[in-house]
Formats: sequence, C-alpha cells, structure tokens
Amino acid sequence: MRYLTAGESHGPQLTAIVEGVPSGLNLTAENINKDLARRQKGYGRGRRMQIEKDQVQIVGGVRHGKALGAPISLVVENRDWKHWTKIMGAEPISSEEEQEVKRQITRPRPGHADLVGAMKYGHRDMRNVLERSSARETTVRVAVGSLAKQILSELDIKVVGHVLEIGGVRAENTEYRDIDDLLAVTEESPVRCYDRQAEQKMMEAIDQAKENGDSIGGIVEVVVEGLPAGIGSYVQYDRKLDSKIAGAIVSINAFKGVEFGIGFEAARKFGSQVHDEIEWSEGTGYTRKSNRLGGFEGGMTTGMPIVVRGVMKPIPTLYKPLQSVDIETKEPFTASIERSDSCAVPAASVVAESVVAWEIANAIVEQFGVDRMDLIKENIMKMRAYTRDF
Amino acid sequence: MRYLTAGESHGPQLTAIVEGVPSGLNLTAENINKDLARRQKGYGRGRRMQIEKDQVQIVGGVRHGKALGAPISLVVENRDWKHWTKIMGAEPISSEEEQEVKRQITRPRPGHADLVGAMKYGHRDMRNVLERSSARETTVRVAVGSLAKQILSELDIKVVGHVLEIGGVRAENTEYRDIDDLLAVTEESPVRCYDRQAEQKMMEAIDQAKENGDSIGGIVEVVVEGLPAGIGSYVQYDRKLDSKIAGAIVSINAFKGVEFGIGFEAARKFGSQVHDEIEWSEGTGYTRKSNRLGGFEGGMTTGMPIVVRGVMKPIPTLYKPLQSVDIETKEPFTASIERSDSCAVPAASVVAESVVAWEIANAIVEQFGVDRMDLIKENIMKMRAYTRDF
Amino acid sequence: MRYLTAGESHGPQLTAIVEGVPSGLNLTAENINKDLARRQKGYGRGRRMQIEKDQVQIVGGVRHGKALGAPISLVVENRDWKHWTKIMGAEPISSEEEQEVKRQITRPRPGHADLVGAMKYGHRDMRNVLERSSARETTVRVAVGSLAKQILSELDIKVVGHVLEIGGVRAENTEYRDIDDLLAVTEESPVRCYDRQAEQKMMEAIDQAKENGDSIGGIVEVVVEGLPAGIGSYVQYDRKLDSKIAGAIVSINAFKGVEFGIGFEAARKFGSQVHDEIEWSEGTGYTRKSNRLGGFEGGMTTGMPIVVRGVMKPIPTLYKPLQSVDIETKEPFTASIERSDSCAVPAASVVAESVVAWEIANAIVEQFGVDRMDLIKENIMKMRAYTRDF
Amino acid sequence: MRYLTAGESHGPQLTAIVEGVPSGLNLTAENINKDLARRQKGYGRGRRMQIEKDQVQIVGGVRHGKALGAPISLVVENRDWKHWTKIMGAEPISSEEEQEVKRQITRPRPGHADLVGAMKYGHRDMRNVLERSSARETTVRVAVGSLAKQILSELDIKVVGHVLEIGGVRAENTEYRDIDDLLAVTEESPVRCYDRQAEQKMMEAIDQAKENGDSIGGIVEVVVEGLPAGIGSYVQYDRKLDSKIAGAIVSINAFKGVEFGIGFEAARKFGSQVHDEIEWSEGTGYTRKSNRLGGFEGGMTTGMPIVVRGVMKPIPTLYKPLQSVDIETKEPFTASIERSDSCAVPAASVVAESVVAWEIANAIVEQFGVDRMDLIKENIMKMRAYTRDF
Repeated sequence: MRYLTAGESHGPQLTAIVEGVPSGLNLTAENINKDLARRQKGYGRGRRMQIEKDQVQIVGGVRHGKALGAPISLVVENRDWKHWTKIMGAEPISSEEEQEVKRQITRPRPGHADLVGAMKYGHRDMRNVLERSSARETTVRVAVGSLAKQILSELDIKVVGHVLEIGGVRAENTEYRDIDDLLAVTEESPVRCYDRQAEQKMMEAIDQAKENGDSIGGIVEVVVEGLPAGIGSYVQYDRKLDSKIAGAIVSINAFKGVEFGIGFEAARKFGSQVHDEIEWSEGTGYTRKSNRLGGFEGGMTTGMPIVVRGVMKPIPTLYKPLQSVDIETKEPFTASIERSDSCAVPAASVVAESVVAWEIANAIVEQFGVDRMDLIKENIMKMRAYTRDF
Repeated sequence: MRYLTAGESHGPQLTAIVEGVPSGLNLTAENINKDLARRQKGYGRGRRMQIEKDQVQIVGGVRHGKALGAPISLVVENRDWKHWTKIMGAEPISSEEEQEVKRQITRPRPGHADLVGAMKYGHRDMRNVLERSSARETTVRVAVGSLAKQILSELDIKVVGHVLEIGGVRAENTEYRDIDDLLAVTEESPVRCYDRQAEQKMMEAIDQAKENGDSIGGIVEVVVEGLPAGIGSYVQYDRKLDSKIAGAIVSINAFKGVEFGIGFEAARKFGSQVHDEIEWSEGTGYTRKSNRLGGFEGGMTTGMPIVVRGVMKPIPTLYKPLQSVDIETKEPFTASIERSDSCAVPAASVVAESVVAWEIANAIVEQFGVDRMDLIKENIMKMRAYTRDF
Repeated sequence: MRYLTAGESHGPQLTAIVEGVPSGLNLTAENINKDLARRQKGYGRGRRMQIEKDQVQIVGGVRHGKALGAPISLVVENRDWKHWTKIMGAEPISSEEEQEVKRQITRPRPGHADLVGAMKYGHRDMRNVLERSSARETTVRVAVGSLAKQILSELDIKVVGHVLEIGGVRAENTEYRDIDDLLAVTEESPVRCYDRQAEQKMMEAIDQAKENGDSIGGIVEVVVEGLPAGIGSYVQYDRKLDSKIAGAIVSINAFKGVEFGIGFEAARKFGSQVHDEIEWSEGTGYTRKSNRLGGFEGGMTTGMPIVVRGVMKPIPTLYKPLQSVDIETKEPFTASIERSDSCAVPAASVVAESVVAWEIANAIVEQFGVDRMDLIKENIMKMRAYTRDF
Repeated sequence: MRYLTAGESHGPQLTAIVEGVPSGLNLTAENINKDLARRQKGYGRGRRMQIEKDQVQIVGGVRHGKALGAPISLVVENRDWKHWTKIMGAEPISSEEEQEVKRQITRPRPGHADLVGAMKYGHRDMRNVLERSSARETTVRVAVGSLAKQILSELDIKVVGHVLEIGGVRAENTEYRDIDDLLAVTEESPVRCYDRQAEQKMMEAIDQAKENGDSIGGIVEVVVEGLPAGIGSYVQYDRKLDSKIAGAIVSINAFKGVEFGIGFEAARKFGSQVHDEIEWSEGTGYTRKSNRLGGFEGGMTTGMPIVVRGVMKPIPTLYKPLQSVDIETKEPFTASIERSDSCAVPAASVVAESVVAWEIANAIVEQFGVDRMDLIKENIMKMRAYTRDF
C-alpha cells in the first residue's frame, strides 16, 4: 500500500489517496470519524479544535461499505473555508486584491518550518510554508491510520496509543491488564493516560504552562498486540519493520525521538538483563519470558506486543515569545502567535497510533498477499498455526 | 541514489551496488578501507576482528579514481572463506556431504533473528538466518557510507560518529571545539569517546562485563556540520530528512532508539526552553542562538549541525547464557556462543556515522541535481549564498 | 514527482494528488480545463461526453495561481452523481435497499477488465471492477498531464499528440512545418489529424463502423520539441526515459503497442539507413541529419524531437455483440452495451500527450533539482548552453 | 523483488544483486550458465562472443542450491580483464600512465549513447560512457532473468523468446504445437527461429549484411504460458503488468518498439475482430476463443498465453561508416568500429525472454506472498482452482 496526502491548513480540504487497500475491507466514514474525534479531544487544546469537528468523506474506492480493491480517496473539508477563500484561493488574483488580501507573513517562528521552508521553496510570504507544514495535516494521517486499524482489526490485531509523560509528569502505574483495558481507561482520560494520579498532575502541568503562556511536550507510547511473528525482514537494511516505524514516528510534527521496549535504558544494562528468554509449550508454541526488546528481533515482529515510544517537543506556538527576525526588515522581533494550544500530546498519541498502524498494516498486506482481505486472513491464520507448531 | 547489499557472514564476500552516484566523484579503495579499519577497531571486540582486516575492491563504476556516473559495485571478500566453502557453498551437495557438513543450528539465541527468521523463511537450520542477519553486514554499509562521506566531503560537509555512553558510563566533558577537534580526539580513543576520563571508565566497564561473561551497550552520537538549510522537506510525510535518519539509525543491528538534539529531554521542558531563537547579521545571514532541535525544523536542515543519537543494546551473543528452546527437540537449553565481543558500541558509532552520511548525501544528490558532482557543488554554493542573503 | 489517482466512473468524483511539483509553477483550473475539453472532443464520441463537461478544481497545493511546492490535489466532480448515489454510495446499505439497488453485473464484456478483475478481487458484481477500470479515469490523468505540460511550457518544451491512423485510414501528408503548425492544424480537426484528406476518410470510417454497430481503433503520435540532450540515463535498466514512456503509453486503456522513431520499420532496414548521423556547427552545436531514432539514444534524449506512437485497439464496448458467459448462470450470452462511442482515438491522442508530458516533466524535475521552477529553468538553460558548447 | 546491476564492458566483472527472492527457490550456477550460453550463441555474432564464455558465480543468498530468502548476488567475470587493468582500473593513475593509457575516445558513434552520455555526465573521454552503455550489460540481465525463469518454472509457468523477423525476412510458419515445441525447435535454430525456411533466408540476410559491412535488426517474440488470471492490476496506472513489460522490452539496448497480441494490426481492424470471446466449460472454467489481445485485459493476465513482440534496430556498430564529429577537433569523420556483430537479434530474443520473465516473476511474488516458494506455490494453486470454479 502507499498513500499521499494534500491540503493546506486553511485551504478548502485535506485529501488523501490510499492505494493498494485489499478488496473486501469493511470501511465506513463513521469508523474514521471516531478516530478523527479522538484526535480532536484532549486537555490543553485551543479554540480551533472546537471549530473543526472533522468529518471524513469517502469519495472513491469504497462501495456500500466495502473496499473495492481500488484506490480509496478520503476528504476532510475545512469548515472554516468560507472565511479563507480570498487568502488561500487557488486562482490568480488581481494586484488590487493582492493589496487587500496578502498580509504577507514575514516573521518566522522558531521551531516551525517557516524560515527554512521559505528559503527552500523561494517564498517571501511564509504563509506559503506554514499552511502545509502545520500539524493540521495529521488529521488526514489519522484518517489513513484509521483505515489501517480497520485492516488490523479484521486480523485480530489491536493498536493503542496512550500518553506516558507530559511536561515532566510521568505515569507510574502503567500495569494495564491487557490491551483492551489500556484502551478503555485511556479513552476516558482527558490526557489519554492510564495512570489516574498522573493524569491529574498532567492536567495541572498543562494549566500551569497555559497560565505562563508556555507550552509543554511529552512522551506517547503505542502498543500493538496480536501480531504473528515474522512481519518485516532482516535481509535488507530497508526492510526492517522497526526501522520503518521509527521513521514514521519521527515524521510526526514535533517528534524528536523514538525508542522500542526498554529503549535508551538498554545503554545502562547488561546483555543478560536485556534479551528476552525463549520458552516453549505444547499448544502455545514459543513465548518470551519478558518483552524488553519491544516486540522486535532482527527487524521482525517476535509475536510479543510491539511497544514503541515517541517524544514530542512542546508545540512551538507560544504566548511566551521567542526571539526571531523579520525576513524583510531584518529587524528582530518576538515571535507571533498563530494558535493557542499549550499541549498537544494527547492528540499526538492518536497520531502516533495511526502511523504505527499504517506501517504494520502495510507490512502485512505486502507479506500476505495484496489483493483480498479474505485471502490475507487465511494466510495470517496459516502463519499463526505454522509458527505455533514450528 | 539507492543501494542494495548482499552476502552472508561466512560466505565468499559481501557485495554492494550503489546506484546514482554523481559522475566525477573522487573515490579510491584506500579511502573506503580507512573507514573499514575504523569499524574494526574498538576496545572490546573479539577475535574475529583480527582475522578479518577488511579490504574493499571497487569492481564497477569507477575509473582511474573517478566515478563514472554508472553504478558502483563494492566487494569485501571474506578472508576466511576457504574454511567455509563446504558449509556455505552455493552449489547443491550430495546427501553424504550433507551428513558431514550440515551441523544444523537448531538452537535460537534470544535477541537474535534466529527463531523468527527461521519461522518466516521456513528454515529448520538457523544458520540460514544468522548468516545474513549478522552484524557482519554492517561492513559493507560502512563502505557505502564512506562513499557517501566522500560526496559530503567534496561539498565541505563533515560527519563524525562518536561514543557518548557505554554500560552506564556517560561522557561528561563533551564540549568539543569544533567537529575537527571532535574527530581528532575520538579517532585516538579506543572507545571513540571525547571525554578522556569517561573513556577510562568505559574500558573498565567493558573489562568487567567480559570477566562476567556478559555484554554491554551504549549510546552513540553523530554530528554533521556544514549543511545548507533546506535539505529534506515538510511537504509529505515521507520526505522529512529527520524521519529518514531515524529509520536509518534503527535499521542498524541492535539499535533500539534514536533522538535528535535534546531528544527525550524535550518531554520535561517548556516550549520556551526548547526552541532555538533566530538571529540575523549582515554577511552571515540567519543563525540560531542554540541547537536544541539538533539541526532540524519541519523535517528540514536548519543549517545548524545535525545532532542525532542512537542507543545500542548489549550484543546478544553471550558467555553468560540465556534460556532458549531447541526447535527440534523442544528441550530448553542455555544459549550457545557464536562469537565473543562484549561491547560493539565503538564500532557501532562508525556504522551510525555511515548510515547518517548516506541519508544526507542521498537527500542532497536528489535535491541538487543527480548527474554530476561539479554541478551539485555549484548548486549547493548558490543555495548557501541564497539563504545567506534571504 | 509522483501521483496517485482515485475514483470510480460513476462515483462522486475523480481525485488526483500530485506530489513534488516545484514551487512557483503557474497553474490555474482554466489551463487544465482546456485540456479536459480537448479530451472530450472528437468525432465518434458517444452521448456521455456531452453530459460530462469536465471541470477541475484545485483543492490543494496552489495559492493565487502559483504552486506552493506542496502536493497538488485535483478534483473532477461527476456531474451525474446525483443519479448514482444509491448504486455507488460508499456507505453500507440495508438488505432491502440492496434488493432495490444492486442489479449485479454478472456478464463480463470481452476486452474489458470485467472477468479477470472480478476473479482477482473476489467480486461477484462486476460493477465493482468496471467502475474503476473504465477509461473515465483518463480524465484525471489528462489533468495531471496538463500540469506536466505547464512545467514543460515554462521550460520552452512543447508536447503535441495527434492522430495518424483510424480504422485503417492512414494520414499521408504529415509534413508539418513545426510543432506549432502541428498543434494549430490538429486542434481544428475533429479527429485531431494533420492530413485533411485522411481526416475526411477517417470520419467516414467512424460513421461506417457506427452504422455497423462496430468500433475502430487507430494510431496516435506524440511529438515533443525543445528538450535538452541528456534527459534519462543509460546507467541502469530502469532509468531509461524511452522505457518509461513506453510503459506510460501501454498503461493507457486499450493501448496495445508503442514505437519510437521509425519503430517497427527498423526490422526491415540496414543499420546504415537507421542511425542518425551527427553534425556540428559553430553556435548551434551538435545536430542530427535525421531523426529515425525518435529522439533517443541510450535511453536519453538526443535533443532531437521525441516521436512516439501508440496503437489503440477498437474500444471493446460494442453494438455488434461478442460472445461471453454469465458468471452466475454459466449461460453464454452476447455482450451487453455500457456506452456507445465507436471510436475514441482522437481523445486517446490527448491522453497519450498527457502521459508522455508527465514522464518527461518528471525526468526533468528529478534531474535538474526538485524544489523550484526558477532554479530548474536556470539549470536547464545552463545545460543547453553546455551541450551547445560541448 | 528488485535488482540492480553494475559493471563496465571491459571492467573486472558484471555484478547483480537481486533482492526479495523467496526462500527455498532451487538455484544453481549451472542453470544460469545455460541461459548465458544461449545469449552468446546466434548466427551473426562477432569474435568477442568466442572470447567471453560467460560463467556466473553465485556469491550470496544461496546455500547448497537453495535460496535463503536473502539477497542473491551474481557475478560474471570478464575473462579478458587482464588486458584491460590499466585502461579500466578503478585506482587513480599518475599523469605519465595517463599519457600511455588514456587514448581518449573523442569520436561519438551515431546510434550509441556516446555523445549524449558524455554531455550528461561531463566526460571528454567517451569510453567513460560506452563501457556502461554497452549491451554487454545484458549478460547479467540474462542471469537475473534466468533466476526469474527458475521461479516461474517451479510454478509451472514457461517463457520462451524466439525470433520472428530479421532484416525484413519474416517467419511465416509459426504455428507451433505448444510452448515446449516452440522451445525445442528454436533452441536448435542458429537464429532462434521456428520457421526453418525463414531461418535459411535470415542467415543469408545476415551474411549479406556482413559482406556489405552493414547490420540488420529484427523482431523477437516472447511467449508465456501457464499463468493464472489476474496478475497485474487495473486499479492504478502504474500497476498494469503489460505496461511494465512494455517498459522492460524498450529498456533493452537497441529496442525501439513493443506490441502485444495483434499489436499494431489493431489499428486496422473492427472491434468485433479484435476482442477475444469468452467461453466456459465444466472443469476447465473460462477460456477464450482467440488470443488477439496477447494475454492481457485491463493490464492483467487473462490466463491465455502472453504474446509480446519487440523490435530491435540494427546494431549501430558498423563497418559501413556513418558520419559523425570529433568532440575535440569538431572535425567530421566517419564512425569507427568497436566490434563486429552484424546481427544481434537471436541473442536479443534471449534478453527479451529474460526481462519478461523478470516482470512476471516479480508481479507474482508481490501478489502471492513474498517470503517462501512453497507458500507461493500453494497460493498460486489456490488461485488457479478459484478462477476455474469462479
């Protein structure tokens, strides 16, 4: 499978085309809208989240609730578009209109793509950059991820993103019973955190940051259960599934790092404390006594849950201003505010869940036959039986 | 550019083909051999490093020291091949020979690709897996990275990998003067560490681990200087350069995480402490007061140094055994030893340097014209002037 | 650059996302609509061409008439959609509605994707196949090609598709003065043919076929002028530009062959009659005495016009029926009629022009720097001067 | 699967790396060498074919005759390399040596990549171009194709390339009994032609051309039998298998066109004469009364034999000289002779067979699961049963 997205933050719509989705997949707008809503919730989001109420339209590739095997096109319209038609319209404008419309943005915000993007693409008006570099684009990546989760769901594979840390407050009680429990609890949490005590402190930290006109980041974790062993491959450097997931996590706006299993802790442990011992029992097959490696060996799934974490920096849009330079006047200024979230980590956990779901669904479709959901199901079941009896 | 590698750990040779290298690049086996030697050094390596003395042969794409624009093929022969011809030969063998030769490996080592790889590809003899999943393959990735560094070097871009932490011992004094200083000092260090005091403790930790029949991991850092702003792009999720680098780092055997700039620390800081303020001065153009984001905004280089770190788990081959299960008898056993390094972190810093160099060189060649080094140089110089005067 | 399309023939819309378009390209819906209209004209088209009057909307990647460097999304709505919402809707339907709506198509038409597509994707209702396999999709490929032509136009490269043969009637007088003349004359022709006498006979052949309830195919030619030498490459099998163009031509619905320059005639000539001798003159540089190879040597442009032809089979939808088999009853039947064009060759010449334009524009953007039109222009001009003075 | 090749005509070796070959495939050098020998035979080849006697070495990815699932590396050494070490060595040479060694080639041959390649990559010595653009590279493409044929053979799919026309002499009697008959007869023919009478005339035409110091081209055909229906897809323009095969054929050195089934004849026929009527019978399933479309509908295999033809121009190396221009002196000259084949069409039919085999094997591996031959076999058999009972 492959997909492309298009669309600007204040343009008429976000669009995605997803190619290679197996025929027979059950897919409805309602399913996807649930995930879009999950992305829009979250303590600490600003006003725009209320305006948006994102709704997807499926405008290709699905008929009567079933994927045709054809490319699927997804559209999320911008409900506020009518206020932006002049500023963001595709058609040329007269020089008078230009006068009126084009309040050029010449003041790059630190931590955004503004300055470098303008240099790269030769824009003097940095709106031409920020409209696309905006995290608004993650809306449609969540839509694509929702589709991917639907594939996984039909194969009894579950993916959940949740929040581990916000602004230095770390969840301590993270011993969820199983992935359904993890989902149920975090789904109710305003910060998508399993630990109710930490949840409170996280919200306080968000309030505090807001009061200070500042922003905070955090750490999200994605857990995947139900995977067969052997997805991904060690045979070529670019076929390792953990590598692809790492790239996907860092491709999310504002993410600065990623780790699997015990992750960076591995630098401080002995080998005898890091690797997961192998057991076997009749009827179950091979299992591991632990899951420190986060579900991967040699770039392949081991059958244990995938556990991957990503770190999100505080969103760079700030009340508390940072110094920057106007590209026209070359005068220093303190950076302007485009929007007002003080913490986007809960939403980011949904985005992370989405991009991980995509990489895994994609690897599975590639590996188990690309055409039809029913055949993929059969092949996966065969693989599960095979590895159990190996 | 793109490349593929092939070859088994005890096969006749490792091979790489690198496609899309611009014509006119200066390239000699001697250059590449220097990097192969850097990979083989390092306190804590086992016996095989002595046997190997890897030497590259350039068997295509280069004539009289200059790249032709044609694909470049690199070969590193296995000096020990004569002892392995029967066990690893490509040609079919008779059933008698099979008797003699095929001591099947049926005991998977935890933390290796052995078990899962065997399940995936249907092998009962896990030698068929471990020969390819072995970190021996990084030899030829270093050769490819050396070629990439040559491209960067002609564009005045420097890449250095070094060691920050081994077995819980962290370098404290890491305030190198400049990247040349960093290279010079770490090149002399048996553990590729800039901090001489930490270096001592790291070697002790390695000795200690060895004595205990255990292994230790660590953290490596790669620094890149001299980059123009605007390499990579924010316009599509899969064109962000930091995402590609993250994927590359995690694709290295035994790497479990990656971070940029302040990385996971970003979860504990306010936005006002994280982003890099922008300054401007006549003749120099835009600079940043700090480099907490590690040289990236919006998936693009900012012009500041790239700073990326990866964590390597302790190598899973152990004297101190872990429990596993024989796939034929289903009997538990404690895992066997295939080789004897107790710490491969210094070598891994050279591999990390190599894969980062590749991603950057590749992004530059794509962006600045794919055919000729002289044109790329011109285009890069123009870009540097343009961004300075922006 | 890369693009994906989505959308069914009677679905709500066709969609394309085009990624990697250089910033600064001038692009308006009006430009693209002209090409959509060119595709819809043509003697021999059926009723649906009148209904459609295709109009593109640019819903991403363009602002005030200029490409932003971001992905461009193009939408062509189906004007007849309101009559198809039940039959083609994306949302699940109740079993009663199903009764009403789902007149399943169980009778595969020979020469269409119907039967094989149904087998591949597991559909019992072949509407699930034919809605996507329909040549309706070429609408949005023409839109993408129009964008590509805009890139070429800004680089002074011209592309024209025209008709050489229909139903056995071959244009004899094809000695156009220059490409502008070729465009001007064929643009006025109801069959897009340069030869006015042949034009008459072609229209008669179309009338005749229609009267007989039959259909006819033909040969189209695409000419490209103004190209610099050296686009494409011989260094790897998959980088030859003529190979890519051949693939693109055959990817058009109903195309069964492709040839360059003298093409299949080359099988009947001596080498001394086939190759194009090289000349040189001060100020002009290298030229060729002839252009039998159609503008390519070694998979690269020579600087001479590209001349490529494709053959289109008669469209398989027929009044004059062919025998087939109902997949439910297994009873033989004679194939039904879905639409009524008797000749689509003139339209196909516009599609061929579009896909050739795309391949060339793509190769140029890759080769001359991917970010900005102004830099590409500069690099192309430099290349032209360089090859002239070589 | 994917592959890259490297190596110059007079360099030490040709190399290929083939990635993604399913584990368990039976593969020996002997198998591949048979195909290399088939490429070297053929009436009309010059002296070098005798020198070469190409032999492949499998230096990675295969153990004891079975593919491991790992990348496979293939090497064909240049037996004449010892005479070329100075001229073609990879290492830098002193300026004195340069004097001695570098008889620069400054005279481009019409019809070769010489001139344009030199312009593109900035070479003044056109040896830097012709060494890679040489059809010598097809040796290793035949090796890769031989591997692909091995995959197909294990799935009971057969591929045969043969010669239809040379220098205007067309085979008339081409009614082979079945593909085994076609292979057996053409294998014995010095020009790989099924028609014994045409064979004689072809050889005479070759003799005649040689006598005149001229060269002749021809038409080759590739036939594939045993394919299941539904390989390839209509859902996206770049997934059509006929399109990929068309691109592959034109990527062969000196090929100028390609057609499927009745090909260009389709321009002269009515729709009722072109499409293949569908029949069905118990136990056999769907069949076609004819195969005018050459085995494809909607870019997918129909289950009928694939029939594809390519046209090869006369090889441009000539005794009978063509005019060209020295790039240093700008003096006209008549083109020199690098080698002396007067007809390479029989060899080209083996190359065409190889590249077609690759595209089909690749499409099958993608579609039916990428890891293991035994699973692919199972999935293919299931697909065959499914389509029979559809």
